[in-house]
Amino acid sequence: MREDETFQEEDLKLEGKNAVLEALRSGRDINRLYVQEHAQSSMADPDRHIAQILREAKKNGVVVNFVKKERLDAMSDTGKHQGVIALAAAGNYTDVEDILKAAKDRNEAPFVIVLDDIEDPHNLGAIIRTAECAGAHGVIIPKRRASGLTGVVSKASAGAVSLVPVARVTNLARTIEDLKKEGLWFVCADMDGTPMYDLDLKGPVGLVIGNEGKGVSRLVKEQCDYVASIPMKGKIGSLNASVAAGVLAYEIVRQRGL
Amino acid sequence: MREDETFQEEDLKLEGKNAVLEALRSGRDINRLYVQEHAQSSMADPDRHIAQILREAKKNGVVVNFVKKERLDAMSDTGKHQGVIALAAAGNYTDVEDILKAAKDRNEAPFVIVLDDIEDPHNLGAIIRTAECAGAHGVIIPKRRASGLTGVVSKASAGAVSLVPVARVTNLARTIEDLKKEGLWFVCADMDGTPMYDLDLKGPVGLVIGNEGKGVSRLVKEQCDYVASIPMKGKIGSLNASVAAGVLAYEIVRQRGL
Repeated sequence: MREDETFQEEDLKLEGKNAVLEALRSGRDINRLYVQEHAQSSMADPDRHIAQILREAKKNGVVVNFVKKERLDAMSDTGKHQGVIALAAAGNYTDVEDILKAAKDRNEAPFVIVLDDIEDPHNLGAIIRTAECAGAHGVIIPKRRASGLTGVVSKASAGAVSLVPVARVTNLARTIEDLKKEGLWFVCADMDGTPMYDLDLKGPVGLVIGNEGKGVSRLVKEQCDYVASIPMKGKIGSLNASVAAGVLAYEIVRQRGL
Repeated sequence: MREDETFQEEDLKLEGKNAVLEALRSGRDINRLYVQEHAQSSMADPDRHIAQILREAKKNGVVVNFVKKERLDAMSDTGKHQGVIALAAAGNYTDVEDILKAAKDRNEAPFVIVLDDIEDPHNLGAIIRTAECAGAHGVIIPKRRASGLTGVVSKASAGAVSLVPVARVTNLARTIEDLKKEGLWFVCADMDGTPMYDLDLKGPVGLVIGNEGKGVSRLVKEQCDYVASIPMKGKIGSLNASVAAGVLAYEIVRQRGL
Protein backbone atom coordinates (compact mmCIF):
# COMPACT_ATOMS: atom_id res chain seq x y z
CA MET A 1 0.00 0.00 0.00
CA ARG A 2 1.43 3.37 -0.98
CA GLU A 3 1.80 6.16 1.51
CA ASP A 4 -1.03 8.25 0.07
CA GLU A 5 -3.47 5.41 0.68
CA THR A 6 -2.78 5.13 4.39
CA PHE A 7 -5.56 7.47 5.40
CA GLN A 8 -6.62 8.13 8.95
CA GLU A 9 -9.37 6.15 10.58
CA GLU A 10 -11.13 9.48 10.90
CA ASP A 11 -11.12 10.07 7.15
CA LEU A 12 -14.45 9.74 5.47
CA LYS A 13 -14.19 7.51 2.46
CA LEU A 14 -16.89 8.38 -0.07
CA GLU A 15 -17.59 5.75 -2.70
CA GLY A 16 -19.73 5.89 -5.78
CA LYS A 17 -20.78 8.64 -8.16
CA ASN A 18 -23.72 10.03 -6.19
CA ALA A 19 -21.95 10.21 -2.85
CA VAL A 20 -18.88 11.94 -4.33
CA LEU A 21 -20.83 14.34 -6.52
CA GLU A 22 -23.11 15.31 -3.63
CA ALA A 23 -20.07 15.94 -1.41
CA LEU A 24 -18.36 18.13 -3.99
CA ARG A 25 -21.50 20.14 -4.64
CA SER A 26 -22.12 20.71 -0.95
CA GLY A 27 -18.62 22.18 -0.62
CA ARG A 28 -17.31 19.44 1.63
CA ASP A 29 -13.50 19.40 2.01
CA ILE A 30 -12.09 16.61 -0.14
CA ASN A 31 -8.54 15.55 0.71
CA ARG A 32 -8.10 13.13 -2.15
CA LEU A 33 -10.10 12.18 -5.19
CA TYR A 34 -9.45 8.95 -7.10
CA VAL A 35 -11.07 8.43 -10.48
CA GLN A 36 -10.72 5.32 -12.60
CA GLU A 37 -8.76 5.81 -15.81
CA HIS A 38 -10.99 6.43 -18.82
CA ALA A 39 -14.07 6.28 -16.58
CA GLN A 40 -15.30 9.56 -18.05
CA SER A 41 -15.55 8.15 -21.57
CA SER A 42 -19.08 8.40 -22.85
CA MET A 43 -19.37 4.63 -23.05
CA ALA A 44 -18.26 4.02 -19.46
CA ASP A 45 -20.15 7.05 -18.12
CA PRO A 46 -23.47 7.32 -19.97
CA ASP A 47 -25.04 9.38 -17.18
CA ARG A 48 -22.09 11.85 -17.35
CA HIS A 49 -21.69 11.78 -13.56
CA ILE A 50 -17.91 11.25 -13.75
CA ALA A 51 -17.66 14.20 -16.10
CA GLN A 52 -19.64 16.31 -13.63
CA ILE A 53 -17.41 15.14 -10.79
CA LEU A 54 -14.33 16.22 -12.73
CA ARG A 55 -15.88 19.63 -13.41
CA GLU A 56 -16.85 20.15 -9.76
CA ALA A 57 -13.39 19.00 -8.63
CA LYS A 58 -11.73 21.55 -10.91
CA LYS A 59 -14.03 24.28 -9.64
CA ASN A 60 -13.22 23.44 -6.01
CA GLY A 61 -9.48 23.06 -6.61
CA VAL A 62 -9.49 19.36 -5.79
CA VAL A 63 -6.63 17.43 -7.39
CA VAL A 64 -7.80 14.37 -9.31
CA ASN A 65 -5.75 11.15 -9.19
CA PHE A 66 -6.49 8.93 -12.16
CA VAL A 67 -5.88 5.31 -11.13
CA LYS A 68 -6.46 1.81 -12.40
CA LYS A 69 -9.64 -0.06 -11.48
CA GLU A 70 -7.63 -2.55 -9.41
CA ARG A 71 -6.43 0.19 -7.12
CA LEU A 72 -9.97 1.46 -6.51
CA ASP A 73 -11.08 -2.13 -5.88
CA ALA A 74 -8.36 -2.45 -3.25
CA MET A 75 -9.33 0.84 -1.60
CA SER A 76 -13.06 0.16 -1.64
CA ASP A 77 -14.90 -0.87 1.53
CA THR A 78 -18.24 -1.35 -0.18
CA GLY A 79 -17.14 -3.03 -3.43
CA LYS A 80 -19.34 -0.53 -5.24
CA HIS A 81 -17.09 2.42 -6.03
CA GLN A 82 -18.41 2.91 -9.60
CA GLY A 83 -15.04 4.26 -10.66
CA VAL A 84 -14.69 6.98 -8.04
CA ILE A 85 -13.56 7.27 -4.43
CA ALA A 86 -13.03 10.47 -2.49
CA LEU A 87 -11.44 10.94 0.90
CA ALA A 88 -13.11 13.74 2.78
CA ALA A 89 -11.50 15.72 5.55
CA ALA A 90 -11.81 14.36 9.06
CA GLY A 91 -13.02 17.67 10.44
CA ASN A 92 -16.42 17.58 8.85
CA TYR A 93 -18.20 16.80 12.04
CA THR A 94 -20.01 19.91 13.14
CA ASP A 95 -20.57 21.34 16.59
CA VAL A 96 -23.83 21.00 18.44
CA GLU A 97 -24.11 24.79 18.17
CA ASP A 98 -24.16 24.51 14.37
CA ILE A 99 -27.14 22.19 14.59
CA LEU A 100 -29.06 24.70 16.68
CA LYS A 101 -28.04 27.42 14.25
CA ALA A 102 -29.38 25.34 11.34
CA ALA A 103 -32.77 25.22 13.06
CA LYS A 104 -32.66 28.96 13.73
CA ASP A 105 -31.70 29.73 10.13
CA ARG A 106 -34.68 27.74 8.93
CA ASN A 107 -36.87 29.41 11.53
CA GLU A 108 -37.95 26.04 12.88
CA ALA A 109 -38.11 24.50 16.33
CA PRO A 110 -34.95 22.37 16.70
CA PHE A 111 -35.31 18.69 15.83
CA VAL A 112 -32.22 16.71 16.73
CA ILE A 113 -31.63 12.96 16.59
CA VAL A 114 -29.30 11.64 19.28
CA LEU A 115 -27.81 8.18 18.76
CA ASP A 116 -26.80 6.48 21.98
CA ASP A 117 -24.17 4.12 20.63
CA ILE A 118 -25.41 2.82 17.27
CA GLU A 119 -22.79 0.23 16.25
CA ASP A 120 -23.90 -0.96 12.82
CA PRO A 121 -22.71 1.42 10.07
CA HIS A 122 -25.71 0.46 7.89
CA ASN A 123 -28.04 1.54 10.68
CA LEU A 124 -26.09 4.77 11.20
CA GLY A 125 -26.23 5.54 7.49
CA ALA A 126 -29.94 4.76 7.24
CA ILE A 127 -30.67 6.97 10.27
CA ILE A 128 -28.70 9.92 8.87
CA ARG A 129 -30.65 9.48 5.62
CA THR A 130 -33.88 9.44 7.63
CA ALA A 131 -32.78 12.59 9.49
CA GLU A 132 -32.28 14.34 6.16
CA CYS A 133 -35.63 13.17 4.76
CA ALA A 134 -37.55 14.02 7.94
CA GLY A 135 -36.08 17.51 8.09
CA ALA A 136 -34.07 17.02 11.29
CA HIS A 137 -31.46 19.73 11.84
CA GLY A 138 -28.70 17.38 12.87
CA VAL A 139 -27.54 14.12 14.37
CA ILE A 140 -25.47 13.76 17.54
CA ILE A 141 -23.31 10.68 18.10
CA PRO A 142 -20.87 9.74 20.86
CA LYS A 143 -17.09 9.80 20.28
CA ARG A 144 -16.42 6.42 21.89
CA ARG A 145 -17.39 2.93 20.76
CA ALA A 146 -20.16 3.82 18.32
CA SER A 147 -19.75 3.83 14.55
CA GLY A 148 -18.35 7.06 13.08
CA LEU A 149 -18.76 8.43 9.57
CA THR A 150 -17.09 5.77 7.44
CA GLY A 151 -17.47 4.93 3.76
CA VAL A 152 -20.08 2.29 4.53
CA VAL A 153 -22.09 4.84 6.50
CA SER A 154 -21.83 7.38 3.70
CA LYS A 155 -23.02 4.86 1.11
CA ALA A 156 -25.87 3.63 3.34
CA SER A 157 -26.90 7.24 3.90
CA ALA A 158 -27.34 7.77 0.13
CA GLY A 159 -25.19 10.88 0.44
CA ALA A 160 -27.03 12.33 3.44
CA VAL A 161 -23.77 12.55 5.44
CA SER A 162 -22.94 15.51 3.23
CA LEU A 163 -26.30 17.17 3.86
CA VAL A 164 -27.05 16.65 7.56
CA PRO A 165 -24.79 18.12 10.25
CA VAL A 166 -23.38 15.36 12.45
CA ALA A 167 -21.78 16.29 15.78
CA ARG A 168 -19.65 13.96 17.85
CA VAL A 169 -19.60 14.57 21.58
CA THR A 170 -17.66 13.11 24.49
CA ASN A 171 -20.55 12.77 26.90
CA LEU A 172 -24.06 12.35 25.52
CA ALA A 173 -25.80 12.79 28.87
CA ARG A 174 -24.05 16.11 29.43
CA THR A 175 -24.85 17.30 25.90
CA ILE A 176 -28.51 16.48 26.49
CA GLU A 177 -28.38 18.39 29.76
CA ASP A 178 -26.94 21.42 27.95
CA LEU A 179 -29.52 21.25 25.17
CA LYS A 180 -32.35 21.08 27.69
CA LYS A 181 -31.16 24.49 28.91
CA GLU A 182 -31.62 25.67 25.31
CA GLY A 183 -35.26 24.66 25.49
CA LEU A 184 -35.21 21.21 23.92
CA TRP A 185 -37.28 18.34 25.29
CA PHE A 186 -35.80 14.89 25.04
CA VAL A 187 -37.67 11.75 24.25
CA CYS A 188 -36.05 8.34 24.12
CA ALA A 189 -37.43 5.19 22.60
CA ASP A 190 -37.98 2.25 24.92
CA MET A 191 -40.47 -0.55 25.35
CA ASP A 192 -41.75 0.65 28.74
CA GLY A 193 -42.65 4.14 27.52
CA THR A 194 -45.83 6.03 26.71
CA PRO A 195 -47.29 5.19 23.28
CA MET A 196 -45.74 7.73 20.93
CA TYR A 197 -49.15 8.86 19.66
CA ASP A 198 -50.01 10.09 23.18
CA LEU A 199 -46.98 12.34 23.51
CA ASP A 200 -46.78 15.93 22.31
CA LEU A 201 -43.72 15.94 20.04
CA LYS A 202 -44.35 19.27 18.30
CA GLY A 203 -41.92 21.54 20.16
CA PRO A 204 -38.11 21.72 20.13
CA VAL A 205 -37.26 18.07 20.43
CA GLY A 206 -34.35 15.67 20.74
CA LEU A 207 -35.13 12.09 19.73
CA VAL A 208 -32.84 9.56 21.40
CA ILE A 209 -32.32 6.14 19.80
CA GLY A 210 -30.47 3.48 21.78
CA ASN A 211 -27.97 0.79 20.91
CA GLU A 212 -29.09 -2.12 18.71
CA GLY A 213 -28.81 -4.69 21.49
CA LYS A 214 -28.73 -2.80 24.77
CA GLY A 215 -31.14 0.03 24.06
CA VAL A 216 -30.74 3.43 25.67
CA SER A 217 -28.13 3.59 28.43
CA ARG A 218 -29.25 4.40 31.98
CA LEU A 219 -27.42 7.74 32.26
CA VAL A 220 -28.88 8.99 28.99
CA LYS A 221 -32.37 7.72 29.80
CA GLU A 222 -32.30 9.57 33.13
CA GLN A 223 -31.77 12.81 31.23
CA CYS A 224 -34.80 12.25 29.00
CA ASP A 225 -38.08 14.02 29.70
CA TYR A 226 -40.22 11.33 28.10
CA VAL A 227 -39.93 7.72 27.16
CA ALA A 228 -41.85 6.90 23.97
CA SER A 229 -42.86 3.42 22.92
CA ILE A 230 -43.78 2.18 19.48
CA PRO A 231 -46.79 -0.17 19.73
CA MET A 232 -45.63 -3.80 19.48
CA LYS A 233 -48.40 -6.07 18.22
CA GLY A 234 -46.42 -9.32 18.07
CA LYS A 235 -44.01 -11.31 20.18
CA ILE A 236 -40.80 -9.49 19.26
CA GLY A 237 -40.11 -6.60 21.58
CA SER A 238 -38.43 -4.12 19.27
CA LEU A 239 -37.87 -2.97 15.71
CA ASN A 240 -34.51 -2.71 13.97
CA ALA A 241 -32.84 0.47 15.33
CA SER A 242 -32.96 2.36 12.03
CA VAL A 243 -36.60 1.40 11.46
CA ALA A 244 -37.49 2.53 15.00
CA ALA A 245 -35.72 5.83 14.37
CA GLY A 246 -37.71 6.26 11.14
CA VAL A 247 -41.06 5.47 12.74
CA LEU A 248 -40.44 7.92 15.60
CA ALA A 249 -38.95 10.64 13.40
CA TYR A 250 -42.03 10.49 11.18
CA GLU A 251 -44.37 10.62 14.16
CA ILE A 252 -42.61 13.91 14.93
CA VAL A 253 -43.06 15.00 11.29
CA ARG A 254 -46.75 14.07 11.45
CA GLN A 255 -47.39 15.96 14.67
CA ARG A 256 -45.46 19.01 13.48
CA GLY A 257 -47.57 19.06 10.33
CA LEU A 258 -50.89 19.05 12.16
CA MET B 1 -17.03 -29.93 3.22
CA ARG B 2 -18.84 -32.99 4.49
CA GLU B 3 -21.97 -34.28 2.87
CA ASP B 4 -24.25 -33.19 5.69
CA GLU B 5 -23.17 -29.58 5.23
CA THR B 6 -24.17 -29.37 1.59
CA PHE B 7 -27.62 -28.01 2.25
CA GLN B 8 -30.02 -26.78 -0.38
CA GLU B 9 -30.16 -23.17 -1.39
CA GLU B 10 -33.74 -23.24 -0.15
CA ASP B 11 -32.70 -24.32 3.33
CA LEU B 12 -33.11 -21.65 5.93
CA LYS B 13 -29.92 -21.28 7.94
CA LEU B 14 -30.72 -19.87 11.37
CA GLU B 15 -27.76 -18.41 13.23
CA GLY B 16 -27.46 -17.19 16.78
CA LYS B 17 -29.16 -18.08 20.04
CA ASN B 18 -32.30 -15.98 19.69
CA ALA B 19 -33.11 -17.01 16.12
CA VAL B 20 -32.67 -20.71 16.87
CA LEU B 21 -34.53 -20.65 20.19
CA GLU B 22 -37.42 -18.74 18.64
CA ALA B 23 -37.64 -21.24 15.78
CA LEU B 24 -37.66 -24.24 18.11
CA ARG B 25 -40.30 -22.69 20.34
CA SER B 26 -42.53 -21.84 17.39
CA GLY B 27 -42.46 -25.50 16.31
CA ARG B 28 -40.62 -24.86 13.06
CA ASP B 29 -39.21 -27.99 11.41
CA ILE B 30 -35.47 -28.11 12.06
CA ASN B 31 -33.51 -30.45 9.78
CA ARG B 32 -30.19 -30.07 11.54
CA LEU B 33 -28.97 -28.41 14.68
CA TYR B 34 -25.28 -27.66 15.26
CA VAL B 35 -24.13 -26.59 18.70
CA GLN B 36 -20.58 -25.68 19.63
CA GLU B 37 -18.88 -28.14 21.97
CA HIS B 38 -19.06 -27.07 25.62
CA ALA B 39 -21.10 -24.01 24.62
CA GLN B 40 -23.67 -24.86 27.27
CA SER B 41 -21.19 -24.55 30.14
CA SER B 42 -22.29 -21.89 32.58
CA MET B 43 -19.22 -19.79 31.80
CA ALA B 44 -19.75 -19.81 28.02
CA ASP B 45 -23.53 -19.50 28.31
CA PRO B 46 -24.33 -17.15 31.19
CA ASP B 47 -27.80 -16.39 29.80
CA ARG B 48 -28.57 -20.16 29.63
CA HIS B 49 -29.88 -19.81 26.07
CA ILE B 50 -27.85 -22.77 24.80
CA ALA B 51 -29.20 -24.87 27.65
CA GLN B 52 -32.74 -23.82 26.71
CA ILE B 53 -32.04 -24.65 23.06
CA LEU B 54 -30.88 -28.15 24.04
CA ARG B 55 -34.03 -28.66 26.14
CA GLU B 56 -36.33 -27.48 23.33
CA ALA B 57 -34.46 -29.65 20.81
CA LYS B 58 -34.93 -32.73 23.01
CA LYS B 59 -38.62 -31.92 23.43
CA ASN B 60 -39.09 -31.58 19.65
CA GLY B 61 -37.03 -34.66 18.79
CA VAL B 62 -34.34 -32.65 17.01
CA VAL B 63 -30.95 -34.37 16.96
CA VAL B 64 -28.12 -32.16 18.20
CA ASN B 65 -24.73 -32.26 16.48
CA PHE B 66 -21.98 -30.99 18.78
CA VAL B 67 -19.21 -29.52 16.63
CA LYS B 68 -16.07 -27.46 17.00
CA LYS B 69 -16.21 -23.68 16.76
CA GLU B 70 -14.19 -23.79 13.52
CA ARG B 71 -16.91 -25.80 11.82
CA LEU B 72 -19.61 -23.34 12.85
CA ASP B 73 -17.39 -20.47 11.67
CA ALA B 74 -17.10 -22.18 8.28
CA MET B 75 -20.85 -22.72 8.04
CA SER B 76 -21.80 -19.23 9.19
CA ASP B 77 -22.99 -16.60 6.72
CA THR B 78 -23.25 -13.84 9.28
CA GLY B 79 -20.10 -14.47 11.31
CA LYS B 80 -22.30 -14.18 14.41
CA HIS B 81 -23.48 -17.72 15.15
CA GLN B 82 -22.95 -17.44 18.93
CA GLY B 83 -22.24 -21.17 19.07
CA VAL B 84 -25.41 -22.39 17.39
CA ILE B 85 -26.65 -22.86 13.83
CA ALA B 86 -29.86 -24.60 12.80
CA LEU B 87 -30.99 -25.63 9.33
CA ALA B 88 -34.72 -25.29 8.99
CA ALA B 89 -36.87 -27.13 6.49
CA ALA B 90 -37.19 -25.56 3.07
CA GLY B 91 -40.96 -25.77 2.94
CA ASN B 92 -41.70 -23.13 5.49
CA TYR B 93 -43.03 -20.60 3.05
CA THR B 94 -46.78 -20.40 3.43
CA ASP B 95 -49.54 -19.85 0.90
CA VAL B 96 -51.28 -16.55 0.43
CA GLU B 97 -54.44 -18.28 1.68
CA ASP B 98 -52.73 -18.97 5.02
CA ILE B 99 -52.06 -15.27 5.42
CA LEU B 100 -55.73 -14.46 4.90
CA LYS B 101 -56.63 -17.25 7.32
CA ALA B 102 -54.28 -15.75 9.95
CA ALA B 103 -56.21 -12.48 9.69
CA LYS B 104 -59.54 -14.29 9.94
CA ASP B 105 -58.38 -16.31 12.96
CA ARG B 106 -57.41 -13.10 14.71
CA ASN B 107 -60.70 -11.53 13.66
CA GLU B 108 -58.86 -8.61 12.06
CA ALA B 109 -59.01 -6.90 8.70
CA PRO B 110 -56.14 -8.36 6.63
CA PHE B 111 -52.88 -6.42 6.68
CA VAL B 112 -50.36 -7.79 4.20
CA ILE B 113 -46.96 -6.42 3.21
CA VAL B 114 -45.99 -7.06 -0.41
CA LEU B 115 -42.32 -6.68 -1.35
CA ASP B 116 -41.77 -5.90 -5.00
CA ASP B 117 -38.25 -7.20 -5.39
CA ILE B 118 -36.34 -6.32 -2.22
CA GLU B 119 -32.76 -7.41 -2.94
CA ASP B 120 -30.86 -6.69 0.26
CA PRO B 121 -31.29 -9.52 2.80
CA HIS B 122 -30.81 -7.04 5.68
CA ASN B 123 -33.72 -5.01 4.36
CA LEU B 124 -35.86 -8.13 3.90
CA GLY B 125 -35.09 -9.27 7.45
CA ALA B 126 -35.79 -5.84 8.93
CA ILE B 127 -39.11 -5.64 7.04
CA ILE B 128 -40.24 -9.10 8.21
CA ARG B 129 -39.36 -8.01 11.75
CA THR B 130 -41.40 -4.84 11.22
CA ALA B 131 -44.31 -6.91 9.88
CA GLU B 132 -44.27 -8.98 13.06
CA CYS B 133 -44.07 -5.93 15.34
CA ALA B 134 -46.78 -4.02 13.46
CA GLY B 135 -49.16 -6.97 13.57
CA ALA B 136 -49.23 -7.65 9.83
CA HIS B 137 -50.66 -11.07 8.97
CA GLY B 138 -48.02 -11.95 6.42
CA VAL B 139 -45.44 -10.91 3.86
CA ILE B 140 -45.56 -11.73 0.16
CA ILE B 141 -42.37 -11.84 -1.91
CA PRO B 142 -41.72 -12.78 -5.54
CA LYS B 143 -40.04 -16.06 -6.48
CA ARG B 144 -37.60 -14.56 -8.97
CA ARG B 145 -34.65 -12.25 -8.40
CA ALA B 146 -35.53 -10.97 -4.94
CA SER B 147 -33.88 -12.18 -1.76
CA GLY B 148 -35.45 -15.30 -0.22
CA LEU B 149 -35.36 -16.46 3.40
CA THR B 150 -31.65 -16.99 4.01
CA GLY B 151 -29.67 -17.09 7.23
CA VAL B 152 -28.80 -13.40 6.91
CA VAL B 153 -32.50 -12.57 6.54
CA SER B 154 -33.38 -14.70 9.55
CA LYS B 155 -30.75 -13.00 11.70
CA ALA B 156 -31.75 -9.53 10.54
CA SER B 157 -35.36 -10.37 11.30
CA ALA B 158 -34.48 -11.15 14.95
CA GLY B 159 -36.33 -14.44 14.57
CA ALA B 160 -39.45 -12.95 12.96
CA VAL B 161 -39.13 -15.31 9.97
CA SER B 162 -40.40 -18.02 12.34
CA LEU B 163 -43.35 -15.90 13.46
CA VAL B 164 -44.67 -14.17 10.34
CA PRO B 165 -46.07 -16.17 7.40
CA VAL B 166 -44.06 -15.45 4.26
CA ALA B 167 -45.51 -16.47 0.90
CA ARG B 168 -43.54 -16.61 -2.34
CA VAL B 169 -45.49 -16.09 -5.53
CA THR B 170 -44.66 -16.31 -9.21
CA ASN B 171 -46.48 -13.18 -10.32
CA LEU B 172 -46.95 -10.36 -7.84
CA ALA B 173 -49.33 -8.35 -10.03
CA ARG B 174 -51.64 -11.36 -10.42
CA THR B 175 -51.55 -12.10 -6.68
CA ILE B 176 -52.53 -8.51 -5.98
CA GLU B 177 -55.38 -8.83 -8.49
CA ASP B 178 -56.61 -11.97 -6.70
CA LEU B 179 -56.38 -10.37 -3.28
CA LYS B 180 -58.35 -7.36 -4.45
CA LYS B 181 -61.19 -9.78 -5.20
CA GLU B 182 -60.93 -10.83 -1.55
CA GLY B 183 -61.60 -7.24 -0.53
CA LEU B 184 -58.10 -5.91 0.03
CA TRP B 185 -57.09 -2.42 -1.05
CA PHE B 186 -53.53 -1.97 -2.22
CA VAL B 187 -51.33 1.00 -1.53
CA CYS B 188 -47.81 1.34 -2.86
CA ALA B 189 -45.14 3.73 -1.73
CA ASP B 190 -43.83 6.21 -4.25
CA MET B 191 -42.67 9.80 -4.32
CA ASP B 192 -45.49 11.02 -6.54
CA GLY B 193 -48.25 9.75 -4.29
CA THR B 194 -50.77 11.27 -1.89
CA PRO B 195 -49.27 12.09 1.53
CA MET B 196 -49.89 8.97 3.61
CA TYR B 197 -51.66 10.94 6.33
CA ASP B 198 -54.39 11.87 3.84
CA LEU B 199 -55.21 8.27 2.90
CA ASP B 200 -57.64 6.02 4.74
CA LEU B 201 -55.56 2.94 5.55
CA LYS B 202 -57.89 1.40 8.13
CA GLY B 203 -59.54 -1.34 6.06
CA PRO B 204 -58.18 -4.63 4.66
CA VAL B 205 -54.91 -3.42 3.19
CA GLY B 206 -51.90 -4.55 1.22
CA LEU B 207 -48.85 -2.33 1.58
CA VAL B 208 -46.49 -2.58 -1.41
CA ILE B 209 -42.80 -1.67 -0.98
CA GLY B 210 -40.65 -1.38 -4.09
CA ASN B 211 -37.10 -2.33 -4.95
CA GLU B 212 -34.26 -0.42 -3.23
CA GLY B 213 -33.09 1.26 -6.42
CA LYS B 214 -35.91 1.03 -8.93
CA GLY B 215 -38.95 1.44 -6.69
CA VAL B 216 -42.25 -0.25 -7.48
CA SER B 217 -42.45 -1.86 -10.91
CA ARG B 218 -44.96 -0.54 -13.43
CA LEU B 219 -47.13 -3.67 -13.61
CA VAL B 220 -47.45 -3.83 -9.84
CA LYS B 221 -48.09 -0.11 -9.49
CA GLU B 222 -50.90 -0.32 -12.04
CA GLN B 223 -52.64 -2.84 -9.78
CA CYS B 224 -52.51 -0.54 -6.76
CA ASP B 225 -55.56 1.45 -5.68
CA TYR B 226 -53.53 4.21 -4.07
CA VAL B 227 -50.03 5.59 -4.18
CA ALA B 228 -48.84 6.86 -0.80
CA SER B 229 -45.94 9.21 -0.28
CA ILE B 230 -43.90 9.81 2.83
CA PRO B 231 -43.23 13.54 3.23
CA MET B 232 -39.66 14.37 2.17
CA LYS B 233 -38.36 17.51 3.86
CA GLY B 234 -34.81 17.46 2.47
CA LYS B 235 -33.02 16.95 -0.81
CA ILE B 236 -32.91 13.17 -0.83
CA GLY B 237 -35.97 11.69 -2.49
CA SER B 238 -36.46 8.50 -0.52
CA LEU B 239 -35.81 6.62 2.68
CA ASN B 240 -34.03 3.28 2.96
CA ALA B 241 -36.54 0.62 1.85
CA SER B 242 -36.88 -1.01 5.27
CA VAL B 243 -37.28 2.37 6.97
CA ALA B 244 -39.97 3.37 4.45
CA ALA B 245 -41.78 0.07 5.10
CA GLY B 246 -41.63 0.77 8.83
CA VAL B 247 -42.93 4.32 8.54
CA LEU B 248 -45.85 3.24 6.33
CA ALA B 249 -46.65 0.12 8.35
CA TYR B 250 -46.88 2.24 11.49
CA GLU B 251 -49.07 4.81 9.78
CA ILE B 252 -51.43 1.87 9.19
CA VAL B 253 -51.08 0.84 12.86
CA ARG B 254 -51.84 4.41 13.95
CA GLN B 255 -54.92 4.75 11.77
CA ARG B 256 -56.23 1.33 12.80
CA GLY B 257 -55.87 2.29 16.44
CA LEU B 258 -57.87 5.51 16.11
